[in-house]
Amino acid sequence: MKNIWLDCDPGHDDATAILLAVSAPNVKLLGVSNVHGNSDSNCTFNNAVRCLYAFGADPEVLVHRGAASPLIKHEKHDPEIHGRDGLGGVEGLPSVTDPALKERLESSLRAPRAVEGIANCIRRLIDDGKSKSDSESEKVTIVSTGPMTNIALFVSVYPDLLQHVEQFVFMGGGVGIGNRSAVAEYNILCDPEAAQIVLNAPVKKTMIPLNVTHTAIVTSEIHARLLSPSGSQSTTPLRHTLSTLISFFADSYKSVFGFEGGPPLHDALTIAYVAAPELFRTRRFRVDIELGGHHTSGETVVDLWDYRKAAEDDWGRDGKNCLVAESVDVSRFFDFFVECIERCDAISPLNH
Amino acid sequence: MKNIWLDCDPGHDDATAILLAVSAPNVKLLGVSNVHGNSDSNCTFNNAVRCLYAFGADPEVLVHRGAASPLIKHEKHDPEIHGRDGLGGVEGLPSVTDPALKERLESSLRAPRAVEGIANCIRRLIDDGKSKSDSESEKVTIVSTGPMTNIALFVSVYPDLLQHVEQFVFMGGGVGIGNRSAVAEYNILCDPEAAQIVLNAPVKKTMIPLNVTHTAIVTSEIHARLLSPSGSQSTTPLRHTLSTLISFFADSYKSVFGFEGGPPLHDALTIAYVAAPELFRTRRFRVDIELGGHHTSGETVVDLWDYRKAAEDDWGRDGKNCLVAESVDVSRFFDFFVECIERCDAISPLNH
Amino acid sequence: MKNIWLDCDPGHDDATAILLAVSAPNVKLLGVSNVHGNSDSNCTFNNAVRCLYAFGADPEVLVHRGAASPLIKHEKHDPEIHGRDGLGGVEGLPSVTDPALKERLESSLRAPRAVEGIANCIRRLIDDGKSKSDSESEKVTIVSTGPMTNIALFVSVYPDLLQHVEQFVFMGGGVGIGNRSAVAEYNILCDPEAAQIVLNAPVKKTMIPLNVTHTAIVTSEIHARLLSPSGSQSTTPLRHTLSTLISFFADSYKSVFGFEGGPPLHDALTIAYVAAPELFRTRRFRVDIELGGHHTSGETVVDLWDYRKAAEDDWGRDGKNCLVAESVDVSRFFDFFVECIERCDAISPLNH
Amino acid sequence: MKNIWLDCDPGHDDATAILLAVSAPNVKLLGVSNVHGNSDSNCTFNNAVRCLYAFGADPEVLVHRGAASPLIKHEKHDPEIHGRDGLGGVEGLPSVTDPALKERLESSLRAPRAVEGIANCIRRLIDDGKSKSDSESEKVTIVSTGPMTNIALFVSVYPDLLQHVEQFVFMGGGVGIGNRSAVAEYNILCDPEAAQIVLNAPVKKTMIPLNVTHTAIVTSEIHARLLSPSGSQSTTPLRHTLSTLISFFADSYKSVFGFEGGPPLHDALTIAYVAAPELFRTRRFRVDIELGGHHTSGETVVDLWDYRKAAEDDWGRDGKNCLVAESVDVSRFFDFFVECIERCDAISPLNH
Repeated sequence: MKNIWLDCDPGHDDATAILLAVSAPNVKLLGVSNVHGNSDSNCTFNNAVRCLYAFGADPEVLVHRGAASPLIKHEKHDPEIHGRDGLGGVEGLPSVTDPALKERLESSLRAPRAVEGIANCIRRLIDDGKSKSDSESEKVTIVSTGPMTNIALFVSVYPDLLQHVEQFVFMGGGVGIGNRSAVAEYNILCDPEAAQIVLNAPVKKTMIPLNVTHTAIVTSEIHARLLSPSGSQSTTPLRHTLSTLISFFADSYKSVFGFEGGPPLHDALTIAYVAAPELFRTRRFRVDIELGGHHTSGETVVDLWDYRKAAEDDWGRDGKNCLVAESVDVSRFFDFFVECIERCDAISPLNH
Repeated sequence: MKNIWLDCDPGHDDATAILLAVSAPNVKLLGVSNVHGNSDSNCTFNNAVRCLYAFGADPEVLVHRGAASPLIKHEKHDPEIHGRDGLGGVEGLPSVTDPALKERLESSLRAPRAVEGIANCIRRLIDDGKSKSDSESEKVTIVSTGPMTNIALFVSVYPDLLQHVEQFVFMGGGVGIGNRSAVAEYNILCDPEAAQIVLNAPVKKTMIPLNVTHTAIVTSEIHARLLSPSGSQSTTPLRHTLSTLISFFADSYKSVFGFEGGPPLHDALTIAYVAAPELFRTRRFRVDIELGGHHTSGETVVDLWDYRKAAEDDWGRDGKNCLVAESVDVSRFFDFFVECIERCDAISPLNH
Repeated sequence: MKNIWLDCDPGHDDATAILLAVSAPNVKLLGVSNVHGNSDSNCTFNNAVRCLYAFGADPEVLVHRGAASPLIKHEKHDPEIHGRDGLGGVEGLPSVTDPALKERLESSLRAPRAVEGIANCIRRLIDDGKSKSDSESEKVTIVSTGPMTNIALFVSVYPDLLQHVEQFVFMGGGVGIGNRSAVAEYNILCDPEAAQIVLNAPVKKTMIPLNVTHTAIVTSEIHARLLSPSGSQSTTPLRHTLSTLISFFADSYKSVFGFEGGPPLHDALTIAYVAAPELFRTRRFRVDIELGGHHTSGETVVDLWDYRKAAEDDWGRDGKNCLVAESVDVSRFFDFFVECIERCDAISPLNH
Repeated sequence: MKNIWLDCDPGHDDATAILLAVSAPNVKLLGVSNVHGNSDSNCTFNNAVRCLYAFGADPEVLVHRGAASPLIKHEKHDPEIHGRDGLGGVEGLPSVTDPALKERLESSLRAPRAVEGIANCIRRLIDDGKSKSDSESEKVTIVSTGPMTNIALFVSVYPDLLQHVEQFVFMGGGVGIGNRSAVAEYNILCDPEAAQIVLNAPVKKTMIPLNVTHTAIVTSEIHARLLSPSGSQSTTPLRHTLSTLISFFADSYKSVFGFEGGPPLHDALTIAYVAAPELFRTRRFRVDIELGGHHTSGETVVDLWDYRKAAEDDWGRDGKNCLVAESVDVSRFFDFFVECIERCDAISPLNH
């Protein structure tokens, strides 16, 4: 069982990451934090609360409010892709004013903010672990599907807790490609300094770049499959909600990027990677963020030829600091995705 | 009475700032945090503990351990100026292994780290203030005499507490001059991104730049005056310690920078500014840090001609964000300094 | 018949470009200039003279001495790839002290330097054209297979002559890939400012990037084919020289970049593009050079998503300024290459 | 007698530099070139022709047309300071359509452009010098009072002629101050890359920065003195023209920069420095231009503390490459200026 903390900016594909984090078989979601990004931090907070509810997360899983803006750059959002509130076009998802969400919403608002929340979560693991012999149970994998502002602050404020982080897994960057500038990917572009701080932290990291996420396309065949529970004629309310989410995202990707075959499920791959790393091929490189360029700010510079002569055994400032996903078994990924939806069907309050 | 939190990297001139913070008449020192800078964070922590003891600070004033490295840049220290341990050549200052320091040392090591320490300090002020009507008493002036890593993390993690910060006062930067690169001052150069984050925070700020600190020179006349208590023939142990501190600093400044007339008391000016702002002339400008240049990284760019058309009433990201000290009444500053030494003579355990 | 000026830094693959420029059927080589790059400018000058001789160029085609260093950056060479003198391991190529080269060598040394040489060449075309009606004959295609220092100076000093340039064709850059830094290609990396100046010039341009040149691999089959004249049992001295050139280049690419299947013929593609543009697929984009980054200096930033909203009809500073080759028909390219060798066999003094 | 080539962008203060270059006793003006800058290159060309005429320059001194735009940056002009045509508000200066200017105008238009013009000028000096023993007479001091685009191209295209350049003297930059950005001076800001290229050239250089030019203020007393020929009651047409020039410039400097006491005569100091270097105090430093910063692009970085450990005896890329003027004897400068006006009164066609 892998402990997970999920830091996200839902966001359509973030929502699918939440679904997987809640329902994947060998994953335990300890907490969620939100961050500015696809929409403003109020919207992404609300959306995270809504998703946790809709996908049937344990009531103890709260959303810890995170950074409303990047460390240094001006805040930016992406309504063209995700709509004004970050989850444009999604049907059947209760709003935060729905009484059913009240308790989680209020507990989340009272909970420590993101950075302290992550620290407290780890301190609890440490305390729990003191009575155990299994060292593995004391660690947490921190997954990021948005700009890495919260994670950067966590590693900077609590360096002494990093030894209890199993790894950082983030959707972001690209190897030679970008999507929201000529060469930069959106999550990194939003807060390049934060990304560099995380990349410098002496903790194992895995980057799921655009090169890989752009292969995990929800084609119309897969979209149809998501709608149909196995051995059943009719779809479920949960699946309807998911289907509207995918349709909106498909339209965005078609109009903005010219993706004709369907939208990529970027963020969902992070949870799949934690739950089923065997679906991915990765290679370890030195990765840095360009912080100073005129045209390349926010580019993930993957040192493919090892010009930096980075140390093999250093995950931090001077070493090969990051596993970079090179490919995913797309077919098995969608099998995993479908399996999670089935499990989610059983627990989602939307269905009951 | 002004509440002060002092974030420092002692450092010879930081030590004089601590002396003033402990002994200035209308200032109340609520807490101290240390940061990497003139020496490594272990040394600056120890030095802060030693100074608080030696200058007779209230036993409740602890040192909260702060950042051991800059947000993004590689760590750098300045042994050429401050010696290997940050307080080279200073005589009569007990080491941290001295039993007299034991309690403060251990309490400090157990205390929350710098960023949480500042937050807790403010929360206490808020709680205390709830029973009072005087809103002014609930604020704290945060003074920085080293790289601003801790302060940057504080403003990023706790934006909701910023309304309880009276202002940030920092020694750092220069208007058209530098000291540790062609154009950058040491404190800013050590962590330029942190400085920019603080400059972007929507809080009043005052910068005490090199241009001003280079006028506050401890000439041999002033040095002699510091040694002699008024109405007394012989000096005190405290003054002897202070004298050795100034002598070492004078030698550094002579050999490294060619200062023949004596060393500048950079950091001490920050506390003097809080205690006696009337000694200073300031002007409000847009100030930014150059983060991207080949030659100018860490330069404080003071927009003297207002080319950025910054808003007059915004202390944050888009406004005239900083008061820049333009001059200090040097003679009155040293009167103030001498007065504080006299007060310190009365409370310093070195003398008793 | 296309008029060509070739600016080069031979260099193994530059040598093959010279071979094509001399022997391609519908191309007229008007002049050659050399530039720092693969080796120093003395070596690349000598090598250009040696190649023109060996490949049987018209005696009137001279080498005009060009820039010995980049506009701003420090000079760099690439002995790891090309050997110390730029044409390491090549057998059968006479040295510049060979009497047979004397006349071309001396004429070249007396000739105007590169920038004036190009200007004079164009002025001659203008003068010749005054008596003609065919406007096409008055233009020249300037081909660059090295750092673009000479070309940048030409466009800056003689803007009034640019209307007589058919286009600039250069081997350089990559779309999301580099070879001599994590993200930069060698020719551009050597003089990024020069490349930007050329890209800003209001003249049609075509870039042949690494993405395409890395597909034009001299496999062992193709290498064998180059050695064997059609309808003949034995090879020729020219082919032997070419074969040793390719073998050395193959070894370099194997040891430095891990190319197991053979070396790419980068520079040769430029002349093939001029002679047979139908072998290439291109698309027009805004292309800029990153001049300011910490990690990305010299990167060719191809604005695939048109974030710069560049004007469609402007080849200069604010428009879609460059055709970028996306693919080449490799099989037909090598047919063309073999055809040129056959023509060269007939004229090369090495064979006679 | 010092040979001078003057590259300028007149501009009010450039006009005064031309006046001095024409009339200073120990200076011989060999040629003039114009450059984009205070106005567009057509205006600065015309203005240079007009000034040469009005100040009575030898008819053989022509204006060679120079760069219409910077090497890389977008072109900028400064109508706020110099008016639309570069010489706003100046009375009594004939326009280029005046028949008296026809011959010089046409000869200038037919003359080689700036870069070739400078090269030809030096080649003539070399040829002349072949029959002489006096090596000194074969050199030329190249003075720049605008953006250094032409000079940068000259040093890049003709490195072999640099040994015949006595030195480069340029008005530009500042030591810790700017005027057209927070930290950059206008001439450098217009073409920072060109300035760096010139600074890297292995030739002696002297920089006359804002710090010095801002001390050479035309106060109302000096203005009055300029109007009054010695021993004469009435002023001259030349002096009237000069007076209107200064009045316009005074108004610009008052409204834009708040200079109440009169305008600085920036460019005139360059010629004064060549003619009377004893009026200036200089120190030799490493000087570079910031090419990459977000806020500091175009800043002249003077390495006051020698952090670059630059070679003492290298005027080029790795050495202390520039004498930086630290002060001028203002009173003697204006004596010199007045003396030149007197000499100009005798030769100016405006007076006859």
